[in-house]
Amino acid sequence: MSSPNSANISRPSGRKPKDLRPVTISRSFTKHAEGSVLIAFGDTKVLCTASILDKVPPHQRGSGEGWVTAEYGMLPRSTHTRSDREAARGKQSGRTQEIQRLIGRAMRSVFNLEILGERTIHLDCDVLQADGGTRTASITGAYVAARDAVNQLLKSGALTQDPIIDSVAAISVGIYQGVPVLDLDYPEDSSCDTDMNVVMTGKGGMIEVQGTAEGAAFSRSELTALLDLAEQGIQELTHLQIEALK
Amino acid sequence: MSSPNSANISRPSGRKPKDLRPVTISRSFTKHAEGSVLIAFGDTKVLCTASILDKVPPHQRGSGEGWVTAEYGMLPRSTHTRSDREAARGKQSGRTQEIQRLIGRAMRSVFNLEILGERTIHLDCDVLQADGGTRTASITGAYVAARDAVNQLLKSGALTQDPIIDSVAAISVGIYQGVPVLDLDYPEDSSCDTDMNVVMTGKGGMIEVQGTAEGAAFSRSELTALLDLAEQGIQELTHLQIEALK
Amino acid sequence: MSSPNSANISRPSGRKPKDLRPVTISRSFTKHAEGSVLIAFGDTKVLCTASILDKVPPHQRGSGEGWVTAEYGMLPRSTHTRSDREAARGKQSGRTQEIQRLIGRAMRSVFNLEILGERTIHLDCDVLQADGGTRTASITGAYVAARDAVNQLLKSGALTQDPIIDSVAAISVGIYQGVPVLDLDYPEDSSCDTDMNVVMTGKGGMIEVQGTAEGAAFSRSELTALLDLAEQGIQELTHLQIEALK
Amino acid sequence: MSSPNSANISRPSGRKPKDLRPVTISRSFTKHAEGSVLIAFGDTKVLCTASILDKVPPHQRGSGEGWVTAEYGMLPRSTHTRSDREAARGKQSGRTQEIQRLIGRAMRSVFNLEILGERTIHLDCDVLQADGGTRTASITGAYVAARDAVNQLLKSGALTQDPIIDSVAAISVGIYQGVPVLDLDYPEDSSCDTDMNVVMTGKGGMIEVQGTAEGAAFSRSELTALLDLAEQGIQELTHLQIEALK
Amino acid sequence: MSSPNSANISRPSGRKPKDLRPVTISRSFTKHAEGSVLIAFGDTKVLCTASILDKVPPHQRGSGEGWVTAEYGMLPRSTHTRSDREAARGKQSGRTQEIQRLIGRAMRSVFNLEILGERTIHLDCDVLQADGGTRTASITGAYVAARDAVNQLLKSGALTQDPIIDSVAAISVGIYQGVPVLDLDYPEDSSCDTDMNVVMTGKGGMIEVQGTAEGAAFSRSELTALLDLAEQGIQELTHLQIEALK
Amino acid sequence: MSSPNSANISRPSGRKPKDLRPVTISRSFTKHAEGSVLIAFGDTKVLCTASILDKVPPHQRGSGEGWVTAEYGMLPRSTHTRSDREAARGKQSGRTQEIQRLIGRAMRSVFNLEILGERTIHLDCDVLQADGGTRTASITGAYVAARDAVNQLLKSGALTQDPIIDSVAAISVGIYQGVPVLDLDYPEDSSCDTDMNVVMTGKGGMIEVQGTAEGAAFSRSELTALLDLAEQGIQELTHLQIEALK
Repeated sequence: MSSPNSANISRPSGRKPKDLRPVTISRSFTKHAEGSVLIAFGDTKVLCTASILDKVPPHQRGSGEGWVTAEYGMLPRSTHTRSDREAARGKQSGRTQEIQRLIGRAMRSVFNLEILGERTIHLDCDVLQADGGTRTASITGAYVAARDAVNQLLKSGALTQDPIIDSVAAISVGIYQGVPVLDLDYPEDSSCDTDMNVVMTGKGGMIEVQGTAEGAAFSRSELTALLDLAEQGIQELTHLQIEALK
Repeated sequence: MSSPNSANISRPSGRKPKDLRPVTISRSFTKHAEGSVLIAFGDTKVLCTASILDKVPPHQRGSGEGWVTAEYGMLPRSTHTRSDREAARGKQSGRTQEIQRLIGRAMRSVFNLEILGERTIHLDCDVLQADGGTRTASITGAYVAARDAVNQLLKSGALTQDPIIDSVAAISVGIYQGVPVLDLDYPEDSSCDTDMNVVMTGKGGMIEVQGTAEGAAFSRSELTALLDLAEQGIQELTHLQIEALK
Repeated sequence: MSSPNSANISRPSGRKPKDLRPVTISRSFTKHAEGSVLIAFGDTKVLCTASILDKVPPHQRGSGEGWVTAEYGMLPRSTHTRSDREAARGKQSGRTQEIQRLIGRAMRSVFNLEILGERTIHLDCDVLQADGGTRTASITGAYVAARDAVNQLLKSGALTQDPIIDSVAAISVGIYQGVPVLDLDYPEDSSCDTDMNVVMTGKGGMIEVQGTAEGAAFSRSELTALLDLAEQGIQELTHLQIEALK
Repeated sequence: MSSPNSANISRPSGRKPKDLRPVTISRSFTKHAEGSVLIAFGDTKVLCTASILDKVPPHQRGSGEGWVTAEYGMLPRSTHTRSDREAARGKQSGRTQEIQRLIGRAMRSVFNLEILGERTIHLDCDVLQADGGTRTASITGAYVAARDAVNQLLKSGALTQDPIIDSVAAISVGIYQGVPVLDLDYPEDSSCDTDMNVVMTGKGGMIEVQGTAEGAAFSRSELTALLDLAEQGIQELTHLQIEALK
Repeated sequence: MSSPNSANISRPSGRKPKDLRPVTISRSFTKHAEGSVLIAFGDTKVLCTASILDKVPPHQRGSGEGWVTAEYGMLPRSTHTRSDREAARGKQSGRTQEIQRLIGRAMRSVFNLEILGERTIHLDCDVLQADGGTRTASITGAYVAARDAVNQLLKSGALTQDPIIDSVAAISVGIYQGVPVLDLDYPEDSSCDTDMNVVMTGKGGMIEVQGTAEGAAFSRSELTALLDLAEQGIQELTHLQIEALK
Repeated sequence: MSSPNSANISRPSGRKPKDLRPVTISRSFTKHAEGSVLIAFGDTKVLCTASILDKVPPHQRGSGEGWVTAEYGMLPRSTHTRSDREAARGKQSGRTQEIQRLIGRAMRSVFNLEILGERTIHLDCDVLQADGGTRTASITGAYVAARDAVNQLLKSGALTQDPIIDSVAAISVGIYQGVPVLDLDYPEDSSCDTDMNVVMTGKGGMIEVQGTAEGAAFSRSELTALLDLAEQGIQELTHLQIEALK
């Protein structure tokens, strides 16, 4: 749990326990997608595009409802050492599938699919450079891309009512050298004891909490400290999303 | 959050909010595996086998350390309507991979891999009948199967020191009709608002917390109530594991 | 060929050449499937479920006829040493495909597909524990599961005429230490010279004969002796199926 | 069963019940393979090549023994209507796997793998034109190709002792319009009641018997009549193999 | 570049630089396909079949236009040493895909798809024996097979206007020991510096030029010399196609 | 062929026939790869990374020689409409394989693999935004990335001699509205008659010429005009590579 001298630990980046990395959100990064956002959480850079497709998956056909889904990928050399290209290996790893399912659930949590109508918002989150926190950056950036794509539908009159009911963002927290810290970068992520990803809406509702003991088990009080940190981080990210969308 | 009249909700099974389903743990269910456990959480029945393999995956070779891993499957007609056989479709679903990665992490959290030595404990959790909670039953049963397999290694002298450092069990909790309830069965699982799986050790350490808002977002106080329920449920399961292993 | 002192050979199980292993047939083993049978041929245990699907494969669509098909699988640790999970490897082995094609043909041989109408009886035979003869146990158990599923269609009025025209069962025979024996268990199967699987109907018609010389070639007279044994075994199994269905 | 007026049935080809189709066996059909045989059973034409590989599959490595294996394929337009190319579909069908496993077993039955030494005879049977009986033509032709390949090993001194202990051939028999007939062509195969493939050695030993009731079940006496026909057919094929190898 | 003493180089086959290998084109090689051609460029032998299918791929459905496509394969032992069977490996190599895309483009270049109507001409080019130039032989033979298939459509009245607007053929050229030579065989192909495949129509239009420096880069004047040679070779092949179709 | 009034055609972009699009080459675009270049040919943007791997593919093991290879991919929404993710579909398309094989050959043409030693330069070309010419931009950018990676090996002393013997670049040319034009963008590419990709070294040697008639066949004189244009374009690109590497 957070020790009395938590201010004294040295995070590899020199950040304080409560510090996010510098976050930048660049809209219209590429030109074809209805929403295209390059989001950076420090050295982690993810390109999030939102595509509007005039079809829905089989389970939604004829329902009058739309769908929101996500896919995730890492460029082979986005990582410290080159990883195999999933397209060449012929399948997506369990990790990739887990992450893209998480992004999809997070995005659907802020959509009213009935208002969206029978169309799909397909989010693609591709990691150009990885330094920890790619899934949280993906969710935070994907929201902005989805917002841009939906705005286009509203502007063109394809939609008259906004299907987005709240904003959504995500952040990681963890226990590093015994101290709860916000927004783990790669050096922290690879040596921390507990790693937790939290997804929340702009209004403060919790959408997803995924905490894992990497080394030692964690206690309820540590969990509480981590959730507090995450709540603060999400608020900052929500603010940055609002700024970026201005 | 837990409402004042929580005692009044009617769970489809007639259980009270704090009730587990009847749990049975049958050891030596099949004869070839070093550990073989049929675990039932009510109508959910999972066969968990532990196999001792004299090899480790490439990333552990030559390290002197062992490995613990898990695979998960559902028989095609373990479910209400028949699901496609994953072997016939040619790949495991994202859900399957997510679950087997979770089981593997949970089991490794109570193993000292150095003491285990260069061998693998391979856990197979196959759902014979599904009625909600297959992943939590899998983890709870897999521990007992792993314990049996390791006991065999200790008995034969292949190991002189116990590589298992704690027990591990898992339970689901969720908010059903506004009330936090323990151990969701299928009718509850398919209509609840929030669904959380919690993995804890026998000594009370938290290993994994995975909470998802299925419908509305959840609040911190709801999260607290769910974690309280889960802690109680895990204590009961830990007791049942101890009884079964006698 | 059957030697004069055939009574003197010692089968590993102590059985006489003409003895089946103890056979048990448990109906309603799981609750979701329309037919669910756990069949045991000694230590070989197979869960056979029959699912009624309201669709037919493309080649039967619009024909007014139904379809009966089967899939087969072994749990990874149903065998002496753990086998790879086919779902994880991404494909079914040639052996698996051969067996499930055999089960499907055997079952279709006793069905009038026109009377069945445009629906599919999908049989899943999953081996929980293997000790030789999994394919013959599968066929023998699948018939009982199919019978239960069809009875449900008749009872509900979905069918007014019985599409099942006969019963079907299967048994293995082989030449072990020079003597023809019935119902090979694993120790016999792995060291016998000739191995034959025979599928017959309750009325005594032959559906499938598959004999293979594993070591030395076999003669016509040995073939005759094996077929005699098989005929006797099938009669016993047919009787056990009738008993189980009472 | 064979009716008194069996001489009066008209086979589509005008053949008598006991007639093989014209069989031709052309050696050295292509130039790279150690054995290369084009075999024709009437309009069925299969190219059988035998390749000598200086390696064995993992299960034979270090055993001092060799291996004999087979693969089977049909050119997409070898059939009446075009079939999908298996390489394009990304997997071999169950039928293909069943046939290539049968060919492999048949060939291994006449090989002494110890004398062969740690090398593989890899047989490839590719159907250029199909008109029924492709698997029996494949086995019959593959033997000649294997013989040629082994002769080369003997001639070069790589082997000093012959690892082939007998010849092997295969033929189909079936009940067509109530009459047992030899060597079914496609029109017969697609409308016969019972279809049986028999593999025998030159010395008359039985290697494989695979009989299937396509429509009605068959009786023991029909089975006897079919086996008699098959035996006669194999004798003729054995003679043709000897002639071709002169 | 072409040296003064180009007449003095010795090609492994003894051919002069401008010589094609002996080319034979045998029509109706197999009986089921609407067009079936065995083409030989020396020891390279390819079976090219043209199948008429009454369907078009999704991108052409409802367009009123037809489609022409090609698939390519090599029998495992068509080559000097056995290659893996692509159907067994579960995917087509990059080389295979590249070649079949080339054949398809070449064939479509001489088809008026509107006149063809909503049907597909599916060309299958299967290499029975390889000795260099399999893709050029495939294109040259596929044209003749397609011509035969279309003639059948014209004869039957299914088409009243000819959808084929020109003939098409292909040849390889390369720089071998410093000298431009026509129609590389395997020994030349595996040791030449530059390798070029040229596809042209009977009227002399260029369809495809694919030149690759295998060792040293090539110059514009070398390119010119190679194209001159190719033009001459294509004229000869066009003449042979006309002769074969008489 | 180039018409007298070629200066009068209007390219969609307003460029003159001999104009390249604006080309920018940004080095060190991402931080992990030994070489990382973002290259833009107008709106076409490709991230090219070069990774140094301390291993070689099986065919080079023990040879003392290194290897240079390439993989290519397009982000799903790099294109006008979203394309399926190849990793999700489970295989790379024929087009992808063709392009990555081309990039690999182009890069190997300027490497002395013996001097490189037993290591691999693995190039990854990932298209962030596509507007025609992705394969030519990939080759041109990959060279710069490879140069940066090799410089690092030279600087660190891992190599004492430079394994790169020349630079390499690529450009497309085509006949648009009857006029030969340089560096086709997407609107031109999708409606031009002939499309050619040319790869050349900095010293002017030709490495690869791939010309395809999309609509009408092309003539030798058109081919000559296209090659002239390409030569000019490559010279400009070579100059830009030199500038970027300063």
